[in-house]
Amino acid sequence: MVDALRIGLAGLGTVGGAVWRLLNEKAPMLTEQCGRPLQIVGVSARSKSPHSDLLTSTVTWYDNPSELARSKDIDVFVELIGGEDGVAKDCVEVALREGRHVVTANKALLARHGVSLAKLAERKGGSLNFEAAVAGGIPIISVLRESLIANDISRVYGILNGTCNYILTRMGEENASFSDCLSEAQRLGYAEADPSFDVEGHDTAHKLAILTSLAFGSAVSIDDIYIEGISNISAADIKAAAELGYKIKLLGVALQTETGIEQRVHPTMVPADSTIAQVVGVSNAVAVQSDLLGELFLSGPGAGGCATASAVVSDLSNLAKVRLNGAVYQPVFRFPASELKPYKKGRMRAHAGGYFIRLSAYDKAGVFASVAKRMAENNISLESIVQRPMAEAAEGAKTIILVTHQTTESAVRRALVAITEDGNLSDKPQMIRIERPA
Amino acid sequence: MVDALRIGLAGLGTVGGAVWRLLNEKAPMLTEQCGRPLQIVGVSARSKSPHSDLLTSTVTWYDNPSELARSKDIDVFVELIGGEDGVAKDCVEVALREGRHVVTANKALLARHGVSLAKLAERKGGSLNFEAAVAGGIPIISVLRESLIANDISRVYGILNGTCNYILTRMGEENASFSDCLSEAQRLGYAEADPSFDVEGHDTAHKLAILTSLAFGSAVSIDDIYIEGISNISAADIKAAAELGYKIKLLGVALQTETGIEQRVHPTMVPADSTIAQVVGVSNAVAVQSDLLGELFLSGPGAGGCATASAVVSDLSNLAKVRLNGAVYQPVFRFPASELKPYKKGRMRAHAGGYFIRLSAYDKAGVFASVAKRMAENNISLESIVQRPMAEAAEGAKTIILVTHQTTESAVRRALVAITEDGNLSDKPQMIRIERPA
Repeated sequence: MVDALRIGLAGLGTVGGAVWRLLNEKAPMLTEQCGRPLQIVGVSARSKSPHSDLLTSTVTWYDNPSELARSKDIDVFVELIGGEDGVAKDCVEVALREGRHVVTANKALLARHGVSLAKLAERKGGSLNFEAAVAGGIPIISVLRESLIANDISRVYGILNGTCNYILTRMGEENASFSDCLSEAQRLGYAEADPSFDVEGHDTAHKLAILTSLAFGSAVSIDDIYIEGISNISAADIKAAAELGYKIKLLGVALQTETGIEQRVHPTMVPADSTIAQVVGVSNAVAVQSDLLGELFLSGPGAGGCATASAVVSDLSNLAKVRLNGAVYQPVFRFPASELKPYKKGRMRAHAGGYFIRLSAYDKAGVFASVAKRMAENNISLESIVQRPMAEAAEGAKTIILVTHQTTESAVRRALVAITEDGNLSDKPQMIRIERPA
Repeated sequence: MVDALRIGLAGLGTVGGAVWRLLNEKAPMLTEQCGRPLQIVGVSARSKSPHSDLLTSTVTWYDNPSELARSKDIDVFVELIGGEDGVAKDCVEVALREGRHVVTANKALLARHGVSLAKLAERKGGSLNFEAAVAGGIPIISVLRESLIANDISRVYGILNGTCNYILTRMGEENASFSDCLSEAQRLGYAEADPSFDVEGHDTAHKLAILTSLAFGSAVSIDDIYIEGISNISAADIKAAAELGYKIKLLGVALQTETGIEQRVHPTMVPADSTIAQVVGVSNAVAVQSDLLGELFLSGPGAGGCATASAVVSDLSNLAKVRLNGAVYQPVFRFPASELKPYKKGRMRAHAGGYFIRLSAYDKAGVFASVAKRMAENNISLESIVQRPMAEAAEGAKTIILVTHQTTESAVRRALVAITEDGNLSDKPQMIRIERPA
């Protein structure tokens, strides 16, 4: 038997605790598959007392995770502390500087500092693996870094936040408001007390930034993402979408265009008969469009201790399988960090696609003709038009729903400004972009 | 720059030709990602003349693929000859015996001789990789061997044959017969002139046998699979399924049960709102149910030169990434071949699940009561009952459609024998098993 892979585990929260349990409870099957044991030799967490039962004679406690990261007794440092700066970043840098391998589930750290950490890892010869950082149990990182190695990727998109998908699913099932479904999600532990990081799209943006870099060989760029959350979506939108053959999902989308790479997070209409439309509840999904495969689609659990720990342990196992003092050459972001292209932002105004538009208009003669004129002036042609009194429209108002053929963001925005200025709307217009599978 | 990975390529058909083109046309991006070139140094194919333009000074032609497999000039032998015995098997054995790595897309070879080849590879220290052998461009082999390493798997199922999925999709879209849609598939090149290997389920069975071994750590067992093809499915079945909220797919299913492992290939009703139900045309899909992830689902292209070559090149790239005279320990079938458990067959009669039953009954009084009595006698309770005159029933006949709650194969078979013996049926009863996502 080859010597054990010696693991230093920093962070014993939900994910860290699950990793600990997996490595212990499943030790025989993991050892059989890896041909050597995966052994935790050191741990560090905020406070020692709740974990004192874990500390057998083979496991050393470290008050300071940086000491653990620096220890010569470990082969790999597992960072499950979290946070984009501070302790997590310090430890990971220490470990990489010492040539240690690092496994992390920290999407914020990678979205902010991924390129500099990748350069450090690649210079020092350690691996930086992060299967758990995006879409939990869905192995999208290894799919992009390994399975799709020969593919030129043109688009990657997905449902990357389970909280939002749960809320949108429940809004559709119950014809309920965003705030009611958010409360339910909070009660069930699917949403945080302060839900804004999830529901305003920032969590999705972090994950998208990582996927974009992997897909397009560009530097990670978290600050150049167009972000809209889901708090503005109403049950009326979901109902109208369903009637027109769509479902509404919060997607992160990265797309290679002529002007650059579009990175956007927003509520999106997807065809009701697409695979991604069936992804309900807290599940996640990722689709990759490429020259050789057309579209590859994956769905599964996006969060939770077990699913995330499953991904962390797969990263550890892949390290354990390397033998004979060998090494595996694996650029962190698919291409060598020194070769990543600067991120060139695609102009959001140039975004091309279909749009769903819901207008609350005063119920008077000529309103629809006026709306139609503004669309025509902007060369927007329409796939569907629905006009009728609807329960959710205000007294004396009617709802007009338009689905456009392919047009541009700037045309739609110009048209909506003109329609608003015409004074026919009783409320702010709603606009939701449409995304179609390959 | 590290030395090139030296590749011997045997077989220059659709897939072999696509691998050749990919390795040449995408050499810069592959070299960048692997940190070393992937270089074809030897080729072999049935006849040299059609490929003479490929043979530059850096590529040696071998009339005999076994000579190529034995050559000390190659690091990895790529077998794209096909066939479960004969030349393909000989070459792969030669290469493995010499300690060479082998990459193959040959599902038949692995389904028949996988365990003995795995033992040989593991004894001699070469890798045997076969991402392309199952579900084409869907990376299900690496998902099972690597990503799900910590998971106890309870079920794996999927759409593993694009020909059948195309035919079933078209039957539903056009309300057309099996034979008309088969002819169309043949015209479009999606079905062979002799389609029986595909439409009778044998191709699916080969792939399923490989997935079963990977999922359950059991020896590959291709002869113990229950197989029904799709030639018996009518447009009436598809229409009735749709009305009841189901779609019909040819699935391969492997399931751990109390009596053993069920391996079955048959037309299957899946809920219309499941992700797998949306997989249409020649696409494939695989779902894996496990303790940590619940269900992981993948869909994508199952065949074709580009998709298959994409998988072959990913196997080659993973070999190219190994450095410093290292090696990667990777049991061929996830667990070491010497430790694979003997396959213990689950009894088909003990299969538990829901069933769709379509009966063509004479249109006379008491028929339905008699059918209902036979179901009750066998403790089969019903989820849906539809009885009405239908166009496709014979003159003087009516169609009765039943969907059962969970019951057993033996109960359904006993009930159908009794119903048939009652003499009320004008035609053989149709029975289709129902499979639900986790």
